[in-house]
Formats: sequence, C-alpha cells, structure tokens
Amino acid sequence: MSYSPLIRQLIDALRILPGVGQKSAQRMAMQMLERDRSGGLRLSSALQAAMDGVGHCKNCRTLTENELCPQCADPDRDDTLLCVVESPMDVFAVDQTGFRGRYFVLKGHLSPLDGLGPEAIGIPELLERIESGAFTEVIVATNPTVEGEATSHYIAQILAPRGITISRIAHGVPLGGELDLVDNGTLTHAFAGRKPIAL
Amino acid sequence: MSYSPLIRQLIDALRILPGVGQKSAQRMAMQMLERDRSGGLRLSSALQAAMDGVGHCKNCRTLTENELCPQCADPDRDDTLLCVVESPMDVFAVDQTGFRGRYFVLKGHLSPLDGLGPEAIGIPELLERIESGAFTEVIVATNPTVEGEATSHYIAQILAPRGITISRIAHGVPLGGELDLVDNGTLTHAFAGRKPIAL
Ligand SMILES: [Zn+2]
Ligand SMILES: [Zn+2]
Repeated sequence: MSYSPLIRQLIDALRILPGVGQKSAQRMAMQMLERDRSGGLRLSSALQAAMDGVGHCKNCRTLTENELCPQCADPDRDDTLLCVVESPMDVFAVDQTGFRGRYFVLKGHLSPLDGLGPEAIGIPELLERIESGAFTEVIVATNPTVEGEATSHYIAQILAPRGITISRIAHGVPLGGELDLVDNGTLTHAFAGRKPIAL
Repeated sequence: MSYSPLIRQLIDALRILPGVGQKSAQRMAMQMLERDRSGGLRLSSALQAAMDGVGHCKNCRTLTENELCPQCADPDRDDTLLCVVESPMDVFAVDQTGFRGRYFVLKGHLSPLDGLGPEAIGIPELLERIESGAFTEVIVATNPTVEGEATSHYIAQILAPRGITISRIAHGVPLGGELDLVDNGTLTHAFAGRKPIAL
C-alpha cells in the first residue's frame, strides 16, 4: 500500500493506454501531480468530451463528433476517387500523403476464423457509398497483411462488374506491417505506385 | 484539418504525458475511441479526482490526498530510520526494496545556478522533522547525480553536530542515473551497502 487510493486509481487508469506499463504509468501520474496539474485537468476534460461526443461520420464512418467528418464536409476534394481503409487512424495517415479524394472506413478486415464476414466489416455500406457516389476509381488501402490482402481481393471481386477501376496501393508498404505505422514518404510512394488488382 | 475538433483536442492533451509524441498520442486517442470508451471515461474521472484531491503529506511531504501518507500513517514502521529522497516517485521505488523506516521528500536537489538553495528544497522542514522524531540514522537517498551528491554532502554537514548516524546509499546505483529508473535488485543492494558520509 505505497500509494494513496487516488494516486493508485490514476496509475491503474493510465495503463489502459497502449504501450503504457506500470513504470510508465507511475511516472506519468507523478509528473502530472508534481508539475502539470492544469495539463492533467485539461486531459481529463478532453477525454470526457471525446468519449461522450465522438461518433461516426454518416458518409465514410470515420470517427467524428459531427454528422460529417472534415474530409467528407470538404467541398474541394475529388469526388471521383474513393480510398478504402481498415480504421479511422488510417484516414489520417493517408491524408498526410496529400491524397485529396474521399474515404470509406471498414470495421477492420475479413477474418473468417473470427466469424468476421463481409457484413461484419461493412461491405454492404461500402457498396451503398459507391452507388450513391460518382467514383471512377476505388483505391483499396487495407493493411499490407494477409487479411488485408484477402479483404482487398474480395472487394476487387465484388466491384469488378461495375466498370470502376479498382486499384491497390503499391507494395512500397512493408508486408506484415500496419498502415498507420508506415512513414509518410513510403506511404506517398505506395499511393503513386498503385495498380489495378489482377483477378 | 484531418481530425475533428474534439479528437484534435484529445490528441493535443495526451501529449502532456512524458514520453508521448504525436504518433503515440494519435494511437492512444484512436484506440480509446474505437475500443475502450469506458476505460477513457474512467481515466478522465481518475485524472480529475487526483489533480483536484491530491496534496502533500504534512509529515514527509510526499503526494497523498490524506493528511498523512500510507507510509507515515503505518504504525508498524521503524521510527528510528529516516530516508531522505528528492521526489515522491522515489518513495515508492525505495519502498519496493523492503525498506520499512520513515521518509522525508525534498523538493528536488540543491542547484545554486538555478537559485535553489537549502530553503527552496525544504531543508528547514527536514530539520524540523528530525527534531520532532526519534531517528538514530538518516539515510540520504538523493539521486546519484552531481547535484544529488552535493545535496547529500550538505545534509551530512548540517546534521553532523546532532549525533545521528548519517549514511548514503551505496554506489550500486549507477552514477548519472535517476533513482526511480533503477531496478529493484540494484536498489536493494544499494540500501544494504549504505555507509557513513565522510566529511
Ligand atoms: Zn466522413
Ligand atoms: Zn508521509
């Protein structure tokens, strides 16, 4: 019982953060308490506002507190290009490459062993989005993993009859990695080097 | 403007945490929003409770929301041993070695170039604590840095006339490091190998 209850609760709560173990959580708690209480209170407010207020964009399904996310609400984007990704984090990674089309965010990737089929990851909503839009090219930017490749192949197959160009980001992205960990330059090249998916 | 305002505020607020850069903050925000909103809300509450409620122990000056910290409130500790450290984090590190005496927490170390003399770091309060206690040994566990050594030497000098044994933790702790980063075994050995400070 070295820590008083409020400090122990704070340390325990900090451990929900990815990559934060016991020692890091202790340092974080102590540093805020000793040196930056106003920062700690600001973080508390920001957490509550975001956890309570953020939902999903009705158009692309990324995370946002508004009906439309900034990417969907922007009138100056290319409405003929649709980029499909696995998670909201990937939207931000792709956007930083300078891509200025539209997005659709799947709920992860196909994973038959976990019972995650096309419906579970949002393929029907993707088809709706494509049917209600004027896209001439769909760029599949799922993760360069086995599951991401399988998901990409599946999307290419179901979109093939529609006369839209379906492309996959080039394998400049390292195989087996996760898209949002890739550096910006690699991802920019991967977009430039995209090619049609061979069926 | 890739992120909506509530998400951007959360990412910015997370960056006050030590060791958390832009990419880590993004991943933390996204992971909480996508997978653990109840954890995010729990962290928000824990932060607010701790930032508003935690003060300093009136006895040893470590962080606690109560008048006395768990170490000072514990009746089963050795009242003849006092361990002096630089920060509340060090109390918890030392306690994990199995030390069961009492503590006093300085406000850091002497740093004449920054204008931090004995009063600024709490030396008068340390003397009060010693005068009101029954200590026969004071273990100086300031950081094994140049400043921590100088602070230790200063404390030894002012306590010398009082007939109390003044000891310094052994240099099993690596020079130039910070006490709370030292592994438990090293710190345990450093306590066992403590020796009187030569003046
Ligand atoms: Zn959107
Ligand atoms: Zn205390």
